[in-house]
Amino acid sequence: MAKSEISSQSTPQLPQVLLMREPPAFTLCGEQPFSSDKFRYLKAYESTLPLDQFLTTHAQSVQAILSSHNAPVTAAILRLLPEARLVVTTSAGLNQIDLPECRRRGIKVANSGTVSAANVADLAIALLIDVKRKISASNRYVKQGLWSTNEDYPLGSKLRGKRVGIVGLGSIGSEIAKRLEAFGCYISYNSRNQKPSVSYPFYHEVHELAADSDVLIICCALNDQTHHLIDKEVLSALGKEGFIVNVGRGPIIDEKEMVRCLMKGEIAGAGLDVFEDEPDVPQELFALDNVVLSPHRAVFTQESINDLGKLVVGNLEAFFSSKPLLSEFLGD
Amino acid sequence: MAKSEISSQSTPQLPQVLLMREPPAFTLCGEQPFSSDKFRYLKAYESTLPLDQFLTTHAQSVQAILSSHNAPVTAAILRLLPEARLVVTTSAGLNQIDLPECRRRGIKVANSGTVSAANVADLAIALLIDVKRKISASNRYVKQGLWSTNEDYPLGSKLRGKRVGIVGLGSIGSEIAKRLEAFGCYISYNSRNQKPSVSYPFYHEVHELAADSDVLIICCALNDQTHHLIDKEVLSALGKEGFIVNVGRGPIIDEKEMVRCLMKGEIAGAGLDVFEDEPDVPQELFALDNVVLSPHRAVFTQESINDLGKLVVGNLEAFFSSKPLLSEFLGD
Repeated sequence: MAKSEISSQSTPQLPQVLLMREPPAFTLCGEQPFSSDKFRYLKAYESTLPLDQFLTTHAQSVQAILSSHNAPVTAAILRLLPEARLVVTTSAGLNQIDLPECRRRGIKVANSGTVSAANVADLAIALLIDVKRKISASNRYVKQGLWSTNEDYPLGSKLRGKRVGIVGLGSIGSEIAKRLEAFGCYISYNSRNQKPSVSYPFYHEVHELAADSDVLIICCALNDQTHHLIDKEVLSALGKEGFIVNVGRGPIIDEKEMVRCLMKGEIAGAGLDVFEDEPDVPQELFALDNVVLSPHRAVFTQESINDLGKLVVGNLEAFFSSKPLLSEFLGD
Repeated sequence: MAKSEISSQSTPQLPQVLLMREPPAFTLCGEQPFSSDKFRYLKAYESTLPLDQFLTTHAQSVQAILSSHNAPVTAAILRLLPEARLVVTTSAGLNQIDLPECRRRGIKVANSGTVSAANVADLAIALLIDVKRKISASNRYVKQGLWSTNEDYPLGSKLRGKRVGIVGLGSIGSEIAKRLEAFGCYISYNSRNQKPSVSYPFYHEVHELAADSDVLIICCALNDQTHHLIDKEVLSALGKEGFIVNVGRGPIIDEKEMVRCLMKGEIAGAGLDVFEDEPDVPQELFALDNVVLSPHRAVFTQESINDLGKLVVGNLEAFFSSKPLLSEFLGD
């Protein structure tokens, strides 16, 4: 009781954490898991001011920013916030944050760390089995009452013995590999550098990995090097029996080219949680049974929101009390 | 060429294998993977005669029967076939075959052995993640164009740390357990007898297993002991946070009671490949997003049909040349 009195008395003096857009986690589950009595959120999206005016107005009081995959932190924004010293993000990926500019300005960055790795890996596996064994399509088939009138439902294909190429063997990729080994798949991978601790075959070139794979799973970070990494050449190397799963970021794949390949049967199917221009999804994909779509929810489950909330709050409270961050991003 | 001439010349003398109904594997992929030049199929379902007359007409020439999950081999049928000495089935389950009557008549039985265990296990996992992470539902949500207009898509729940009770720890159940361990689930099981080689906690009573589980996966054989094994008491013990997956046989679950529980929210969701009265599925399930349905296809993939064909042909050829069967069922 004493605590809440102090908290409500001291609210005006609480340090502020800037939110430029509502994080998807807030939209999905409310603000409560991300709340603290040590700071309060300053919500640009609830103001009638244009963003730059809002930032200019609050320039002196913003030391910390909470970002999310849909809330970019650009150099132009950081120029308006000279006191900023921390960007925390609810996402695992950091592509929406101008990391060189943060470094130049001495701004620390903390992401969602490995909190969501298991969830993202689970969704990658779900999308893969779903598209290979036609789960969503067969669910619709049965629910439309077609089973009793139509015996022609097409067969799916097996997982055991399939060669899976993982693009990006970080915490998420490693969780994916562990699961796929239990299904009897053969794992290879591509990443910036070969991992000395890993025995899976390493491919320096993604198109060579694709050529030797039945399935390609994309779970690397999006940056200048990985933008459209999965291009026409890679998709063509994957081939018409090949499946692709993307739980990384939409722009890692040349989406137009992938849509063309899916429509022409130049690749066999896709399971996609992320897209180039979310929430817009290429409508050509809507009619394809060999494509399973998910609305960028790989990291989110009922359980993970609480874990993520604890980590976000922990990072922000640590910053405001000058303690080490819980999940500081120290560069690749 | 010489072989095919001999084959076509000798066709009239080839031993016959009785088919009472077209096996789903034939419907899905044609007869070719199940064909041999050592025997030919005698198809009751292509005759205009009623089944009993057909069987009486061919009584003296039928030594072997090819069954499937939808083609019962009852005592009444066996009485009409005094020369029958073998029943092969394309199914893993043997519930459609009167095993005591086969034993009494000295008729050997061969099933699909472990050919399909990995496929069935994959489908069980797919149904489980699909219903827990709402894959089919989110696929529909995105494909209906709702993502860009509606942010209220409900969250799924995590697999890691969940307690999964496996009912029937044979070859399929063991493959399921292996996969779920990689997802970080805790496995317990129920079966007729505790398995000395297995360290998972054993529950003698299914309702106790259900009470201690977040998910129940049904993959035991259907027989007199397991008919409606999953009844009101078990479903109630599983509870409103609990999920059920059935890749065994429909009648292992009291389907009416399960439908009632799903509609009332007394259990959280279900992934079902099998039903009490296939291909009829309770229509109440069609509108439920927390229910994922599959048209009894757990054993079937493009690859498994060929493996299954080799095993069926191998068993039948072995029988006609008096060699040991490849997958003789020797009792539980």
